[in-house]
Amino acid sequence: MVKSYDAFLLDLDGTVYRGKESIPEAVEFVKTLKEKGLRYLFVTNNSTRTKETVAKQLSGFGIPCTANDVLTTSMATASYIKAEKQDASVYYIGEEGLRQAMEFENLTYEEDHPDYVAFGMDRQITYDKYAKACLAVRNGAKFVSTNPDVALPNEHGLVPGNGSLTSVISVSTGVAPIFIGKPEPIIIEQALAKLGTTKERTLMIGDNYDTDILAGIRSGLDSLIVLTGVTSEQALKTKPVQPTYALHSLSEWQF
Amino acid sequence: MVKSYDAFLLDLDGTVYRGKESIPEAVEFVKTLKEKGLRYLFVTNNSTRTKETVAKQLSGFGIPCTANDVLTTSMATASYIKAEKQDASVYYIGEEGLRQAMEFENLTYEEDHPDYVAFGMDRQITYDKYAKACLAVRNGAKFVSTNPDVALPNEHGLVPGNGSLTSVISVSTGVAPIFIGKPEPIIIEQALAKLGTTKERTLMIGDNYDTDILAGIRSGLDSLIVLTGVTSEQALKTKPVQPTYALHSLSEWQF
Repeated sequence: MVKSYDAFLLDLDGTVYRGKESIPEAVEFVKTLKEKGLRYLFVTNNSTRTKETVAKQLSGFGIPCTANDVLTTSMATASYIKAEKQDASVYYIGEEGLRQAMEFENLTYEEDHPDYVAFGMDRQITYDKYAKACLAVRNGAKFVSTNPDVALPNEHGLVPGNGSLTSVISVSTGVAPIFIGKPEPIIIEQALAKLGTTKERTLMIGDNYDTDILAGIRSGLDSLIVLTGVTSEQALKTKPVQPTYALHSLSEWQF
Repeated sequence: MVKSYDAFLLDLDGTVYRGKESIPEAVEFVKTLKEKGLRYLFVTNNSTRTKETVAKQLSGFGIPCTANDVLTTSMATASYIKAEKQDASVYYIGEEGLRQAMEFENLTYEEDHPDYVAFGMDRQITYDKYAKACLAVRNGAKFVSTNPDVALPNEHGLVPGNGSLTSVISVSTGVAPIFIGKPEPIIIEQALAKLGTTKERTLMIGDNYDTDILAGIRSGLDSLIVLTGVTSEQALKTKPVQPTYALHSLSEWQF
């Protein structure tokens, strides 16, 4: 008999869907959470999309989800800055998800002498953006980055993730960023606060050992790896610290 | 009395000019080399310009110089690949200097399954270029980069150099590049071969300890630091290995 939990943090890609296809067992799992009145939050390192876009996609799969059930690393990054400095000015580089999150927190966009440089995945990255960010960091701006993922899958293979794009600034300035997303504890602490739950009563669920499961381990949450995505059963065996649970499918979960 | 040398390798920015202004003592120094029939080569980590562009600039300062007196790190990168694989295909990212050097060596430009990925300073860098490079390196392409400089001065301060731009690919793939430029020995070996001289009879001259002087030290050449550029007299004192000579100006050199 497994421990019972009040709340569940769920990763997205590889856990509830794969690319454009839903994972039916995950859809049923979330429906059951909803029926049982258990709390849940989708926690994603994807910084490019807004919470509304994510909620719309999940709803399209039949998953009960509103924008309020989503915490993106862009939202967590903006909240982190807001909590540190209410009226911070930020030079942010990223896509719609990061821009919307910064505007939602009423943080001022500032290119020349910002308090913060915030970096998120930007497929329109330019040398000029990098140059502005480096000058600001060298002038003392605090440097945060949405997430440390070094690679992302696309249809051709593994392409650069936010962690590798961020490295231009850290290598050039010698200043390491504060990473916000999984496996860092910052996004998990925000998720618990948003759900009003505690780490003891919450389960972290994901397919990627190095982001989802490590995030749970580092933040003191129990964790469940579902072998439907990045981490294979074999790769999992090589990890020195194991997740609390490992399942081939969320349909195996015993409530 | 200092040792006499047959040949001289000279850095450019900070050594023979500063930005758009020549350093008159350096102009006179090179004129004297020419008059005395001593060999010299300008060796630069700037990968963006062609040898003709560099020669034209130096000639404009009154320095005796043709394209044949210039070795850019782009030229050294193309030569390195050519020497390794005569008919190599290369996915190269960079500006005019790198493109011209690759074409000069008759290396084939190839995006999809190149033998090599060659990275040089590119102020038109895009996510798509990075993605192609990462896919190629993951597919086994050998990864070379023109130079490891992490920062460059512009009118506002220090902006990203080629070494930091290169890090996107190395961080994303986990594959470290072979750097060609100073302080690596590769470009120095090519310079000696081009001049037909030996390391014992050649002096490396530059203003930057971490590139020019280290290049000399690592390659077994005597070195002369001229305190007209990046490295200050105070910074020089902190270095565990000292250059053979340190001068405030090239006018102090005793032939």
